[in-house]
Amino acid sequence: MNLEKLFKPKSMAVVGISKKNPLSPGRIVMLKNEFEMQVKVYGIYPSGGEIEGIPLYERLDALPEIPDLLVIAVGPDDTLDYIQNCVDLHIPSAVIIGGGFAEMGIKGKKRQDKLEKIAFENDIAVLGPNCLGVYAPPLVDTIFLPTERITRPPKGSVALISQSGGVLVDQFFTKFYERNIGVSTAVSIGNRAVVDESMLLEYFSKKDPETSNIAFYLEGFKEGKAREFLRLAKESDDTVIVFFGGKTREGKVATISHTASLAGDYKIQYSALRQYQIIQPHSERELLTCLKVYDLLSHRKNPFGKNVVTHGNVAIVSVSGGHGVIASDMLVQYGLHRVDFTKEERADMRELMNPVAREIASLNNPIDLTGSVLDTDIENIVRYLSDIDRIECIILLLLPYPPNISFQIGRRIANIVSTKRKPVVCFVPYVPKYSLIIESLELAYIPVFHSIKETVQAVSALKHRTKMDNLKKGNIFWEKD
Amino acid sequence: MNLEKLFKPKSMAVVGISKKNPLSPGRIVMLKNEFEMQVKVYGIYPSGGEIEGIPLYERLDALPEIPDLLVIAVGPDDTLDYIQNCVDLHIPSAVIIGGGFAEMGIKGKKRQDKLEKIAFENDIAVLGPNCLGVYAPPLVDTIFLPTERITRPPKGSVALISQSGGVLVDQFFTKFYERNIGVSTAVSIGNRAVVDESMLLEYFSKKDPETSNIAFYLEGFKEGKAREFLRLAKESDDTVIVFFGGKTREGKVATISHTASLAGDYKIQYSALRQYQIIQPHSERELLTCLKVYDLLSHRKNPFGKNVVTHGNVAIVSVSGGHGVIASDMLVQYGLHRVDFTKEERADMRELMNPVAREIASLNNPIDLTGSVLDTDIENIVRYLSDIDRIECIILLLLPYPPNISFQIGRRIANIVSTKRKPVVCFVPYVPKYSLIIESLELAYIPVFHSIKETVQAVSALKHRTKMDNLKKGNIFWEKD
Repeated sequence: MNLEKLFKPKSMAVVGISKKNPLSPGRIVMLKNEFEMQVKVYGIYPSGGEIEGIPLYERLDALPEIPDLLVIAVGPDDTLDYIQNCVDLHIPSAVIIGGGFAEMGIKGKKRQDKLEKIAFENDIAVLGPNCLGVYAPPLVDTIFLPTERITRPPKGSVALISQSGGVLVDQFFTKFYERNIGVSTAVSIGNRAVVDESMLLEYFSKKDPETSNIAFYLEGFKEGKAREFLRLAKESDDTVIVFFGGKTREGKVATISHTASLAGDYKIQYSALRQYQIIQPHSERELLTCLKVYDLLSHRKNPFGKNVVTHGNVAIVSVSGGHGVIASDMLVQYGLHRVDFTKEERADMRELMNPVAREIASLNNPIDLTGSVLDTDIENIVRYLSDIDRIECIILLLLPYPPNISFQIGRRIANIVSTKRKPVVCFVPYVPKYSLIIESLELAYIPVFHSIKETVQAVSALKHRTKMDNLKKGNIFWEKD
Repeated sequence: MNLEKLFKPKSMAVVGISKKNPLSPGRIVMLKNEFEMQVKVYGIYPSGGEIEGIPLYERLDALPEIPDLLVIAVGPDDTLDYIQNCVDLHIPSAVIIGGGFAEMGIKGKKRQDKLEKIAFENDIAVLGPNCLGVYAPPLVDTIFLPTERITRPPKGSVALISQSGGVLVDQFFTKFYERNIGVSTAVSIGNRAVVDESMLLEYFSKKDPETSNIAFYLEGFKEGKAREFLRLAKESDDTVIVFFGGKTREGKVATISHTASLAGDYKIQYSALRQYQIIQPHSERELLTCLKVYDLLSHRKNPFGKNVVTHGNVAIVSVSGGHGVIASDMLVQYGLHRVDFTKEERADMRELMNPVAREIASLNNPIDLTGSVLDTDIENIVRYLSDIDRIECIILLLLPYPPNISFQIGRRIANIVSTKRKPVVCFVPYVPKYSLIIESLELAYIPVFHSIKETVQAVSALKHRTKMDNLKKGNIFWEKD
């Protein structure tokens, strides 16, 4: 099934527009695409007329061209009629926003069976029903929520596929925006009657050069499709990340879902997925951290170079002992390892410091440069550590509270990273007055986080990528975490 | 040992002021207290003179009065001389900012022994050494970091005690401010040579009416003081919360700490502490969530009344099925329970809804009111659930994306809570455009969080309080989580 017209339509038609209710889903979709997106939009209305200057056509077959995509925002029975229209008019793809299908009992299930039959027999790429559809900037946006109510993520490398539209818009769009993680295309799959996670994995892996990372929020695999998904994941050159909602028994009851999982038990799923080189974060926050890191690595200004290898050997640099303690704790939780420094290395580093801080700094790993630190101390230490091969990644806990740290510090670190190419992940407090430091790092594509946990997760994300790359190259067998 | 002069000084003197370096710790402390706080400040400088219009005195015995507090920001040997001055002049309390004591090898340890001897024999309340000291608004602030670099938390019910000054200022101050959690007093204890966690627990429990919640960030208990701490915690009428940094073996290596813990193993500590009615969050974020909830409950406008009882029986109300799934997952993780609705209750709720949403809403727990929801639907359902006794708490996942939810929704929920007094905890996305909704809830002292996890943690925090209250009253034995 060809999904290209679904995600890169040149033209689309919308059915289910209300002239009376400006908040009707069809009308919102028509107007936002007309005025905010690049796709050519046609509205369908039984008696024609116009809305906000856009002429409405009485029927689909009255349009001046066959649209690439039909967005259907009407009741379930009319929806089936419109899918039949797609067949008759050779409209190659459709998004069904409304519900009333498999999620609504036996009658709905029958309707969905009929829908599937028509779509598969006639090769129409139908997304939904019961979904928000597609957000593929700058082309198309079928999300029926008013634009002013949602937060759109920036453009980037992540194809984001969610079984829940609410989770897509709230948990991901907002947090992608906050963290500056870019999407190539976002997809709400709803009941996934026709287009499902496997088809999307195949499409984004093979057909979409904009995508290098494919992330799924699923409550379970589609019945009978788990093996196909795993095979496709293994074949994919992109990084594939799957996060499961509804992992517990309680969560499962809450998913009114007719899909059967690969296995009823989450633990079995987890180990099965690892074998297929799928990265599976343990929490939504870890998912976001992974995506932030992978999106940066996919950028052409990838600051750490193409072949970042991180097995998890870390040096921690801080100006607060307590922060070092917390980060050390978390390294263990994430299966990462603090590198030990030699006596010579400690002596070298002490030499590099200003005379006051030198007396009180702790130069074991984690390093505590203390509140007497200067910019140059941080710079010298990070540069020194960058040259030690057995250190694969530096965690820099950059607290700008000591009185002599300047606003240059971000740019100074960026300069070192751009020369040395040693992975550095930073923690900087998320406080408006420090945004200059944060921006100078982010403009150099160095990952910056605002909690110690996420900073450590970022190193774990690098380690996972290294493992997956090795597995793909057949270099290693999977080892236990 | 009387700590009152340490935390509520009428006057203080500062030693270790530099005329050349405007960023010297002593000078920063003198100026911020003079211009930003209420305490009367005296500066000491060997040759007298003045800084920014503040006259400097040549010696402590030249001051016009005996100060309540001496802040010492000089090298370690001079520090001991000044402590002797405190003895001679009857200065009852001191904060020692500098290091060079037990954290710095055998020589430092000897120095600290000497310090302890003088302080205990002469009953001088010494805080530190190697600490940031006291932030007790509006009276005193001995934190030597420039005010413009840090974020101060609002005034409230939490006494906050941290073994790490960096963690206090960064992890807690900033996050307290973000979450609007108020402190009565914040204390950085450093090496806790004299004033330690047990003395602080006793002081804040018995002597400070402003404090109702006492929170500790510790890397371990002071040697030989664990039992005293536990006894005091059990006796305390305040809610006592302890969070341990350095919980793993790796973390322990990172704490250059001479304190012996109650037990080397974190798990033993954990169960030991529970028996003593100490609330022990599993993460820093959970600690913050607990404190947010307890600070609200300590306010005189406590929205849920004095005797909130929550064993963890919850109803979830959402407008997104996926959010319900995630919240259900987390309920299980936190040992909470989704209440089942009866057929009658489901029918009643359906009756209460608008005709469109009624057809598609899912009225099992978690409730999904769908994107066709109106304000009145949310209002009616929350009011209805408030009257069901076996529901102890309502989790409201308030996503304002559906086009018909208005900015009144926060106030409408607040009105219900103020009448019904049923605990309601809300999730609202942290997006500036929704701040009116957030504020209307927060002004009614209803806890609002910006992640589903924290929202569920808040219910867990209510449950923990109920357990602790019951233990204090001797009502129940401890049951396994």
